[in-house]
Amino acid sequence: MAPGVSHMCPASRASIFPHRHTRALWPCLPTVFRSWAIKEMIIFVQCPGEVVEAPGSWRGPAEGLRLLKVGGKHLGDLSFPELRGISNLFSAYCRRAFVPWDVLMIRGTHQVWQYKSRTLKEFISFCICKIGGCHRSFIGGRSVLTAAGCQITVNTYFYSTRFSSGTSASLCQGVMKGLLTRCRALPALATCSHQLSQYAPQRFHHCAPGRGKRLMLSRMFQPQKLREDQVLSLEGRSGDLTCKSQRLMLQMGLIHPASPGCYHLLPYTVRAMEKLVRVIDQEMQTIGGQKVNMPSLSPAELWRATKRWDSMGRELLRLRDRHGKEYCLGPTHEEAITALVASQKTLSYKQLPFLLYQVTRKFRDEPRPRFGLLRGREFYMKDMYTFDSSPEAAQLTYSLVCDAYSSLFNRLGLRCIKVQADVGSIGGMVSHEFQLPVDVGEDRLVVCPSCHFSANMETLDSSRTNCPACQGPLTETKGIEVGHTFYLGTKYSSIFNAQFINVHGKPSLAEMGCYGLGVTRILAAAIEVLSTEDCVRWPGLLAPYQVCLIPPKKGSKEEAAAELAGHLYNHITEAVPQLQGEVLLDDRTHLTIGNRLKDANKLGYPFVIIAAKRALDDPAHFEVWCQNTGEVVFLTREGVLELLSQVQVV
Amino acid sequence: MAPGVSHMCPASRASIFPHRHTRALWPCLPTVFRSWAIKEMIIFVQCPGEVVEAPGSWRGPAEGLRLLKVGGKHLGDLSFPELRGISNLFSAYCRRAFVPWDVLMIRGTHQVWQYKSRTLKEFISFCICKIGGCHRSFIGGRSVLTAAGCQITVNTYFYSTRFSSGTSASLCQGVMKGLLTRCRALPALATCSHQLSQYAPQRFHHCAPGRGKRLMLSRMFQPQKLREDQVLSLEGRSGDLTCKSQRLMLQMGLIHPASPGCYHLLPYTVRAMEKLVRVIDQEMQTIGGQKVNMPSLSPAELWRATKRWDSMGRELLRLRDRHGKEYCLGPTHEEAITALVASQKTLSYKQLPFLLYQVTRKFRDEPRPRFGLLRGREFYMKDMYTFDSSPEAAQLTYSLVCDAYSSLFNRLGLRCIKVQADVGSIGGMVSHEFQLPVDVGEDRLVVCPSCHFSANMETLDSSRTNCPACQGPLTETKGIEVGHTFYLGTKYSSIFNAQFINVHGKPSLAEMGCYGLGVTRILAAAIEVLSTEDCVRWPGLLAPYQVCLIPPKKGSKEEAAAELAGHLYNHITEAVPQLQGEVLLDDRTHLTIGNRLKDANKLGYPFVIIAAKRALDDPAHFEVWCQNTGEVVFLTREGVLELLSQVQVV
Repeated sequence: MAPGVSHMCPASRASIFPHRHTRALWPCLPTVFRSWAIKEMIIFVQCPGEVVEAPGSWRGPAEGLRLLKVGGKHLGDLSFPELRGISNLFSAYCRRAFVPWDVLMIRGTHQVWQYKSRTLKEFISFCICKIGGCHRSFIGGRSVLTAAGCQITVNTYFYSTRFSSGTSASLCQGVMKGLLTRCRALPALATCSHQLSQYAPQRFHHCAPGRGKRLMLSRMFQPQKLREDQVLSLEGRSGDLTCKSQRLMLQMGLIHPASPGCYHLLPYTVRAMEKLVRVIDQEMQTIGGQKVNMPSLSPAELWRATKRWDSMGRELLRLRDRHGKEYCLGPTHEEAITALVASQKTLSYKQLPFLLYQVTRKFRDEPRPRFGLLRGREFYMKDMYTFDSSPEAAQLTYSLVCDAYSSLFNRLGLRCIKVQADVGSIGGMVSHEFQLPVDVGEDRLVVCPSCHFSANMETLDSSRTNCPACQGPLTETKGIEVGHTFYLGTKYSSIFNAQFINVHGKPSLAEMGCYGLGVTRILAAAIEVLSTEDCVRWPGLLAPYQVCLIPPKKGSKEEAAAELAGHLYNHITEAVPQLQGEVLLDDRTHLTIGNRLKDANKLGYPFVIIAAKRALDDPAHFEVWCQNTGEVVFLTREGVLELLSQVQVV
Repeated sequence: MAPGVSHMCPASRASIFPHRHTRALWPCLPTVFRSWAIKEMIIFVQCPGEVVEAPGSWRGPAEGLRLLKVGGKHLGDLSFPELRGISNLFSAYCRRAFVPWDVLMIRGTHQVWQYKSRTLKEFISFCICKIGGCHRSFIGGRSVLTAAGCQITVNTYFYSTRFSSGTSASLCQGVMKGLLTRCRALPALATCSHQLSQYAPQRFHHCAPGRGKRLMLSRMFQPQKLREDQVLSLEGRSGDLTCKSQRLMLQMGLIHPASPGCYHLLPYTVRAMEKLVRVIDQEMQTIGGQKVNMPSLSPAELWRATKRWDSMGRELLRLRDRHGKEYCLGPTHEEAITALVASQKTLSYKQLPFLLYQVTRKFRDEPRPRFGLLRGREFYMKDMYTFDSSPEAAQLTYSLVCDAYSSLFNRLGLRCIKVQADVGSIGGMVSHEFQLPVDVGEDRLVVCPSCHFSANMETLDSSRTNCPACQGPLTETKGIEVGHTFYLGTKYSSIFNAQFINVHGKPSLAEMGCYGLGVTRILAAAIEVLSTEDCVRWPGLLAPYQVCLIPPKKGSKEEAAAELAGHLYNHITEAVPQLQGEVLLDDRTHLTIGNRLKDANKLGYPFVIIAAKRALDDPAHFEVWCQNTGEVVFLTREGVLELLSQVQVV
């Protein structure tokens, strides 16, 4: 960065535009502007490979608008050198000093509608406005040439800032004046043409949910269609990938190996996980859960107090800091939370129960990490810890958390079995696991078909073949543990002295429970259970995107339907607000519809909508693939909107 | 858990109630039921310390409703032993076998309104309904005795499940019948009275945002009003806490020390942080950011490749796994992301730029962690990494990310300075810091008042006293670094060979940038800058709760206004949907309004609303304290709603 430039530019775009209005597309600009009086406006226009020769004109209800400059021609108050200066300043600011900028300066008090030019084909623009008392800047993106031939529609992004703070108080006070003054001091820069279309127009296609912009599949960071041998080499293994979810998640670009048992979660998976966390938050907060966040670095002395520093053995990942102090990376947080609650010295029985939970990374040094996200060394877990004033209350809390877990799995459409389980290293008196029955599961379960007894085999005498409750025969199955609950009693509260003042005014030990959900494991387990051999399937609520919209192939007979697909995209996000950010446009129009449909099927969008031949009927009909019911239907726009308005999004 | 019971109970409450309806309070139950035909309903009622003697009656438009049983008396189809059996089963199910349950069984096809009884004072209830073809269960909470004396209003929680999956297929098929059949086989359990009010009625006061339930301050896990000496002992230090945000956050129960430089984030802080992350997501996704999630365990070989394994020295927290393989805990992720992008072998220039970011915990072994969340060893950071196809494109991306940062800080109302900065251990060619000017800041900055040059002192010759741009005098200030941006060029992409296919079909190295925001640090820095010596102040968008509602003191002259406060609570959450989950009721009515107002002032709710004497006027007037403007106004209900409808919530 040239030192002569850097100090004056940063602030010129530093600030805020009222958040609501940033959602607007360029076509909505007049609406935005209508609410404030525009005083002045400078628009910088860059035309790759050609010079703007002809003045344009503004169409729309723009009374009082006065076009001062276009294409370098002087049409108003400002002299050419001044505008040249602004153009150069902006070029320098954008670090693209050798591209010619054309400047349009407009003064007026009303509205801007559309700029028409005979020659502009593609441009990027930057615009500074004085609206009311403060200045705002906009940067607009790719323009398209409509059928009419000359009409600019900025249709891909709209970004805005306001000059108000940052380094430059004077810019805030009088941007326009300051800019012009400073421009005069800049040496004129040489200009030359430059093809920008390689990068500038391709920005910002992947946007925020709810911002009304289109999400383009071609822009996703997501390696697809890897062959099985490529996947194997990713994992650095020569053996088989015995687990479907692992293979599919690697092949479809949902995860990528970082080190043994550790994975990068790629954008689709992050979206699914964030949805899962929202469902978990809802269920936990419904039963009174309060969310906390405890560090991963867990001091050794806490673990020595419960003797788990030794008993957890090599599963604990241990380290020392620069002062030699020992820590482990928390695989679970009974010690930490109990010490935290114990530090609250004035706790009353009236405040209990506390249901405290977090969703954080956990660490376990698995001897043999495997099956992708099903058994990793670093994973996300929801862990809840409850504190009650009596065993009875604690057991009621235990029931409620179990119910919340059942409710969660039911909302996800996962048929879990709750089985009696071993308390393992956590300890306590009662424990249950929530198991998702599937062949790849590492837990062996028994269920009694007649009396509904169910248990993890490790809790039973291995020679037992009949049900301890009704003596009937037991059926064996395998499962993936996705949740685990423990009634702990005072095991931890007695060690850390986690007390409350009871109804008689005396200190009393809190009765505890702890409850885990494997967050990343639930994602993988759901994919394991729901997917086919080649196609990922998600619980509907967790699908990263609900809708994939496929326009026709470029150059095909149906190409005219592309515009209809674009309109349908807008209609969906306008008419079905919960689908904002959930509709992906498969803009890889160099591929046939069939090829893209195949990809969409593999990625498991709940709804795939194709604009093909029948979209050219009157009224237009769209082909809708409903992945979860297996139906394919042809629907009008209204039919599509009605169908999609039923979709639940978390 | 008694083995004879556990196998039949879990499924009886396992499942889902259509999500939307769980938002309803008990008073809305009729509305829920109206949409389905109720076939049968069993209500279990438990009365602590007393037996229900008298039959109750159902009020409301309950045509066709038939009360079969109340207080153990036979009023309908079912014989006493059957109902006793259900009661016992439910007692056993709740693990509270020695508490008497009374059972009401109702058959009908219409609506339920309110149950009236002469004797019930407090109860907990559980209810199984057959609605349409499937069974649903509800569990209701604390009942209150209204002024009328005998009216039950379940006003604290409403929780529901549907019998459809889980262990028990037969329960799903015919719950009611199955339950009754099985009840007969249970031995009658001894029953005795038991005082439940200590725990059962006090549940579920802290509920999910958006679920229409009241948030009660008394239930928050949040130690308050710690004296400075208590705070000091928390930190295990004898010295001064030199930093206001650290002291306030400890005193107000926002954070709690876990180990040096590591903090538990308590519920208020977690809420504020989640809001901050949402704002960050919006800003990053507006410029095309895609969210990923990379492990904390970072293999040593990556860091050796860039030579940072050695150059980062003791700032890296290092560990070995059970196989002796070396890792560090990632303080930043240039190595990991570059290796990830390098693994995508078919990247085209058409796909670029990629703007990949994550919000995760980072680790840095600070020699002397201090100032609470301002300089910790484990903290949350947003780190973005960008990949472009040319230096020009990368520099445009750099500008855009800087703009997004400016926009973020402006939305938070934090006046940051963007200064030129040293590239440090990250490297690269250009770097800027976003500094929040404050005395406690550890960075020394210079700014030039005349030309807006600004820089971190460490980038300048220490003898320099004049501005390198305009030669004017420089002003010195201190700042907290809240953001840092780097234009990296090909420093990392050349090491890991992160290439793309350029427009000429040849492989070319990606141009990179990296960009950090200190998430937990921004929270603490904002509190540092905005708070007074005794009172926490938040950026409006990040306040954990927007509104605190204070009803009159119990037993005071204004006590009658308590009901109005309750109604106002409901009106706010109904009329201003974005405030669902944002309104906290300070139900500690044993305290005076003055005391509670003082607490509210310390915690910094943007709006504190008091129902006192003037709430008894006609129309009622509420006292509204607007923390951010310092105004105190008396408003009618409509006035309050209008004021609050302006509040922005993220």
